Amino acid sequence: MNKIEYNSKDILALEQRYRAMFINSLGGFKSLSLIGTRNRDGQSNLAVFNSFFHIGANPPLFGFIVRPDSVERHTLHNILETGVFTVNHVQESFYKAAHQTSARYAAGVSEFDAVMLTEEYLQDHYAPFVAESHVKIGASFRQRTDIELNGTVLILAEITYVSIPRESLMPDGYVDLGKAGSITCAGLDSYHRTELISRLTYAKPGTLPESIIV
Amino acid sequence: MNKIEYNSKDILALEQRYRAMFINSLGGFKSLSLIGTRNRDGQSNLAVFNSFFHIGANPPLFGFIVRPDSVERHTLHNILETGVFTVNHVQESFYKAAHQTSARYAAGVSEFDAVMLTEEYLQDHYAPFVAESHVKIGASFRQRTDIELNGTVLILAEITYVSIPRESLMPDGYVDLGKAGSITCAGLDSYHRTELISRLTYAKPGTLPESIIV
Repeated sequence: MNKIEYNSKDILALEQRYRAMFINSLGGFKSLSLIGTRNRDGQSNLAVFNSFFHIGANPPLFGFIVRPDSVERHTLHNILETGVFTVNHVQESFYKAAHQTSARYAAGVSEFDAVMLTEEYLQDHYAPFVAESHVKIGASFRQRTDIELNGTVLILAEITYVSIPRESLMPDGYVDLGKAGSITCAGLDSYHRTELISRLTYAKPGTLPESIIV
Repeated sequence: MNKIEYNSKDILALEQRYRAMFINSLGGFKSLSLIGTRNRDGQSNLAVFNSFFHIGANPPLFGFIVRPDSVERHTLHNILETGVFTVNHVQESFYKAAHQTSARYAAGVSEFDAVMLTEEYLQDHYAPFVAESHVKIGASFRQRTDIELNGTVLILAEITYVSIPRESLMPDGYVDLGKAGSITCAGLDSYHRTELISRLTYAKPGTLPESIIV
């Protein structure tokens, strides 16, 4: 296979936008979700994120990265002000609207209105969910960690509410995101549907994993 | 749509393995990679990870989560001891071997041997790459942050080497992971190939994103 190699020097010499595109591609396929928030005055905000990562199941914790010098600063401000937010998976039917939330709208504009997605308020959660989304997570802020290496902020949060399609929940607790319609993304701007290869049994030394048929 | 809702109480009441399966599913599709390390005595180690997340492109930084009470402790030990490791994407041709690296092999066993993947040493990088992998990243340890909320460890690292198939690199710096053969995962044990929906143009207020044809 014909390959291209880059070392540190090569990477640092790349033109800025080219390097952003290149480095953002390297991590593999990513979660794709819309984070919904609302400030104390009731102004809602919606922003697309792809750095969601699992931290633990007990308590149910996850994290994501915010760039305070970007449109993401409204999301950060609202989370710190109210302590709550929502995470909403993206389906193919509205991926262009999800992408469009990354445009630099003025502070007084709700991205819900701008991209024509629907605010939904569930139970007593102050932050807005995306009505169109099939997988909805309500979250409570737990910890802020500033990453001094590049000025980004790591937000750690706990899952306090989940809504999923009944048909996507398997008997062992696995949520079939293909059935739920969730899609994935890559790089800065590439969107992908998925196709199941297989689920595999728990790995043990001396045996080979087998396909799980649910 | 018929949906199921869970609140905090419901989630905490779930049986432990069911909850782990459930919560691990919620974040959406994830990066899938094998992290290669080698301790000071030359003993190699390989472990599957799915918490890789992008932090920034300049310098090129990423992070991932390690569970020190699991098989991942050898990975953590070797990274802290030598300061370097590799990240290798997984293709469909060896996803079962990748999954099998999560079995609890004894400390003296190299997962490379156990699952029959091939160690490869590139340039002067001390840590082993996976020869079979099409997308290979060499990384240098930058920072350890202990997450006291649940005893996990966040590793921050810098990309110092990249090898990709020439045909996967697009003119704007985007790396087409579908062309490279990289797959994605979901939950604890589910593996998926992807299919491109579209790349979208940079989002600006007042316009709609369009498909990028490269």
